[in-house]
Amino acid sequence: MSEKAKRSGVVFRPHFKTHQSHIIGSWFRNFGVDAITVSSAEMAQYFARDGWNDITIAFPANLLETKSYNELASAVSLNLILDDEEVALRLGKEMQHPAGVFIEIDCGYPRTGIHFSDTKGISRIIRALDDSLHLHFRGFRTHAGNIYTAGSREDIIKIYRESIFRLQELKESFSANGRELLISVGDTPACSLVEDLAGVDEIRPGNFVYYDLMQYDLGSCSFDDIAVSVACPVAGIYPERNEIVIYGGAIHLSKDFIFFEGEKVYGKVVLYDGNSWSAPLPETSVVALSQEHGIIRTLSGIISKLRHGDLLGIIPVHSCLTANLLRDNILIINT
Amino acid sequence: MSEKAKRSGVVFRPHFKTHQSHIIGSWFRNFGVDAITVSSAEMAQYFARDGWNDITIAFPANLLETKSYNELASAVSLNLILDDEEVALRLGKEMQHPAGVFIEIDCGYPRTGIHFSDTKGISRIIRALDDSLHLHFRGFRTHAGNIYTAGSREDIIKIYRESIFRLQELKESFSANGRELLISVGDTPACSLVEDLAGVDEIRPGNFVYYDLMQYDLGSCSFDDIAVSVACPVAGIYPERNEIVIYGGAIHLSKDFIFFEGEKVYGKVVLYDGNSWSAPLPETSVVALSQEHGIIRTLSGIISKLRHGDLLGIIPVHSCLTANLLRDNILIINT
Repeated sequence: MSEKAKRSGVVFRPHFKTHQSHIIGSWFRNFGVDAITVSSAEMAQYFARDGWNDITIAFPANLLETKSYNELASAVSLNLILDDEEVALRLGKEMQHPAGVFIEIDCGYPRTGIHFSDTKGISRIIRALDDSLHLHFRGFRTHAGNIYTAGSREDIIKIYRESIFRLQELKESFSANGRELLISVGDTPACSLVEDLAGVDEIRPGNFVYYDLMQYDLGSCSFDDIAVSVACPVAGIYPERNEIVIYGGAIHLSKDFIFFEGEKVYGKVVLYDGNSWSAPLPETSVVALSQEHGIIRTLSGIISKLRHGDLLGIIPVHSCLTANLLRDNILIINT
Repeated sequence: MSEKAKRSGVVFRPHFKTHQSHIIGSWFRNFGVDAITVSSAEMAQYFARDGWNDITIAFPANLLETKSYNELASAVSLNLILDDEEVALRLGKEMQHPAGVFIEIDCGYPRTGIHFSDTKGISRIIRALDDSLHLHFRGFRTHAGNIYTAGSREDIIKIYRESIFRLQELKESFSANGRELLISVGDTPACSLVEDLAGVDEIRPGNFVYYDLMQYDLGSCSFDDIAVSVACPVAGIYPERNEIVIYGGAIHLSKDFIFFEGEKVYGKVVLYDGNSWSAPLPETSVVALSQEHGIIRTLSGIISKLRHGDLLGIIPVHSCLTANLLRDNILIINT
């Protein structure tokens, strides 16, 4: 990802919400990364403590957190995001230290962000930022979450192209008077599939550090690219119904599921051999989860080889949520 | 719950996996509770450190945890559960300190447990326990998880009655030669709805300490009985689509959802007034979650009264998962 960003001439500001780890974060330094994205003030503080000093908090500025933002802005180069004039005005009054601001744009994924067509609203936000003492308008950003509902790689690339077209139009409209504006995008599927990322100034993918079953299903990665599995002991063996039960439930894997090869699954299952893991076991999936139980449906030929206490690896559906749940229990095997 | 247990003449051994809190656990002592249920060795250690000394680990014995089981069994009165002869044999060899064992029975909910009709398999497990030096067979337990798919209160009570009928039959069959056996059941819906719990020896409900939207929907509790809500700041206001966005996502609420009043919801929304919260806001639900964003669909009359940074309360779908995610951020208001 770092090489692709360099090749494309864009800044690589990876999102660290997926791993939330000082150790994994430090690996990025070896690739020349010095700017990062996080999703809360708390996460910014966590990485600031490890020496990161160019941090974007990529969640709309929370007016209950201005004390933390001020502490951060006094210590590191901080960027905030927002999509509302009132927030810009109130933040403008409360910030005592310089902070960059990106305006979040809804380019067709209605979660947060001001709609790209609302240029009057965008102008008002820019005016509020310009009138503040410490906020510096830096440009536009979007998260094209609608990419996750795309039916094909071509659709992902199409949504990506449309999003950056919207941001490029805004950049052009609002760059008058020599103002230097940036556009920032970033989701793992598009950043994985688009070969040349030129046309934006900055990318912020996060999930790619691990990938997961959802990304594999979308076509963002190969199965071998997935870098996280959850080690779960076999706790119940039920040949009469072709099921095994693992210690590994909703509080370990999260309740995110996908329809994978026609079946609702909470994870796929691999075997460990000490250093690496196998291809997914055929016709074997985590099909139900309760708080601590995972139910795996599998083949009788697989069940007959398993014993209580054997460890199976579960490839999670959504590694961000799984890693968040298991942060204190992550074993890093660097092969 | 404590009073109902006393009235019914059954032991109340509440499940502490829902709150996982020393403080909340300590309240149970005021009601005479001295025996508890947990779902892992780690959770048993956590509560043993707070002085609890009669603990059942209600997850099938994990053969990778025998070191922890031995440490616990040397310090407290420990019960384990299992459903398999091989586990009984291996655990029998590895335990160096006395531990009680309940055999887990599948009474019609195929998760873990040996099927109630497999009396030969049950006999083999009992024999393995009897042959061990430190394991003491104490009785039968079940978790009637199928209660959660019941369509009505009557169905819940029917499933409960069937389950305890199965356990009573087993108790009678295997109580020969003066052996004293116990039967242990416990899920929040049945323990909430069944007035007289006589017929079992022990109940183990856990969720009732908070209840949640799923329990309310099942009929286990009234809305006023729900004792947990998640305080989430308003981070985005979108009158054009009748939506607001909160800082409150899958890593706070969990991705559990239910179909509530015909709609897929991840939580209902209340207002705070300092000491308590309101009834659920009409036609207002958390309808989508990403890692840190919650999308609330609501009425224009409600949106027009909200400002960025206002706190809303989210009544979670499944309080066990939500409390597990927010353990370090729980504020207890004891009214």
